[in-house]
Amino acid sequence: MHLFEKTIGSEPVFDGKIIKVKKDRAELENGEIVNRELVIHPGGVCIVPLTDQGEILMVKQFRYPFQTVLTELPAGKLEFGEDHREAGLRELKEETGAECEKFEYLGVCYPSVAYLSEKIHMYLATGLSFDKQHLDEDEFLDVIKVKIEDAVEMVMNNELPDAKTQCAILKAARILGIK
Amino acid sequence: MHLFEKTIGSEPVFDGKIIKVKKDRAELENGEIVNRELVIHPGGVCIVPLTDQGEILMVKQFRYPFQTVLTELPAGKLEFGEDHREAGLRELKEETGAECEKFEYLGVCYPSVAYLSEKIHMYLATGLSFDKQHLDEDEFLDVIKVKIEDAVEMVMNNELPDAKTQCAILKAARILGIK
Repeated sequence: MHLFEKTIGSEPVFDGKIIKVKKDRAELENGEIVNRELVIHPGGVCIVPLTDQGEILMVKQFRYPFQTVLTELPAGKLEFGEDHREAGLRELKEETGAECEKFEYLGVCYPSVAYLSEKIHMYLATGLSFDKQHLDEDEFLDVIKVKIEDAVEMVMNNELPDAKTQCAILKAARILGIK
Repeated sequence: MHLFEKTIGSEPVFDGKIIKVKKDRAELENGEIVNRELVIHPGGVCIVPLTDQGEILMVKQFRYPFQTVLTELPAGKLEFGEDHREAGLRELKEETGAECEKFEYLGVCYPSVAYLSEKIHMYLATGLSFDKQHLDEDEFLDVIKVKIEDAVEMVMNNELPDAKTQCAILKAARILGIK
């Protein structure tokens, strides 16, 4: 069948806390057999928390693969099978202390489609009210506020490399008519 | 040091053709020791190929982790150390048959910052001329043309889940002033 690949074998090679890795074998439409490396991840959720003053809350945290601090939207990993809306509301509260009146779905993005099963759901949170941040014991991050116009400029100027942050800010900006 | 994590151990757990996986141990700022699962990837490049008629070339291909055909921008993996501009021009030619007069950098996105080292560089290609597609032997994909306004709508309507495709189309649309 055109463009289809048929799995003919699958070997688990790593079973971690965050990811599982498998090495599959698949048959292509021309009959050729190829290896497919596959990273299984439960998926995540990120939030554009927009204050009544037109500011986005973002978080700064150390990102191990890049050995540096990155500025991103608040986000978190789903438990396997967890509802992404509930997870998004929880992460928003934990990381920024915010609750919201409106929680609007912005769609999903698949970070790296060739070998990674992760899906990141995106939300726009408005009507924010604030309580205390409740981070996990081993979680360290700083919350900052950035005007949404400035956040869009930061995306365009390549100052926010995180992909989910770029997608969700640019989508929210289009919906809100930000120049 | 605030937000910093110090690596204190690293164990390779998988050495594949596309990815390598390591299980590191890191010390947090409070002295706690945590595991860090890490997927190493050489990075990639994607291209927004815009015709003189205002159409974007996209590719449809089977994406193994989702067991379905996705529509995306032309893209490819870098060899370790390869220049992303050269790789982008090569992938554009291979996947769509196009060469371009102008190849404008749109910035980089990091697909999944918590555990994945991949960086995807993005380009806008204009002044296109066409020759023949030159796919790898085990590569199957169909090229389609979509008006840039329609491609933006497809991103906003959640019809293009691939993250790099969303980022690059929305960035290009802002630069080009697409409503």
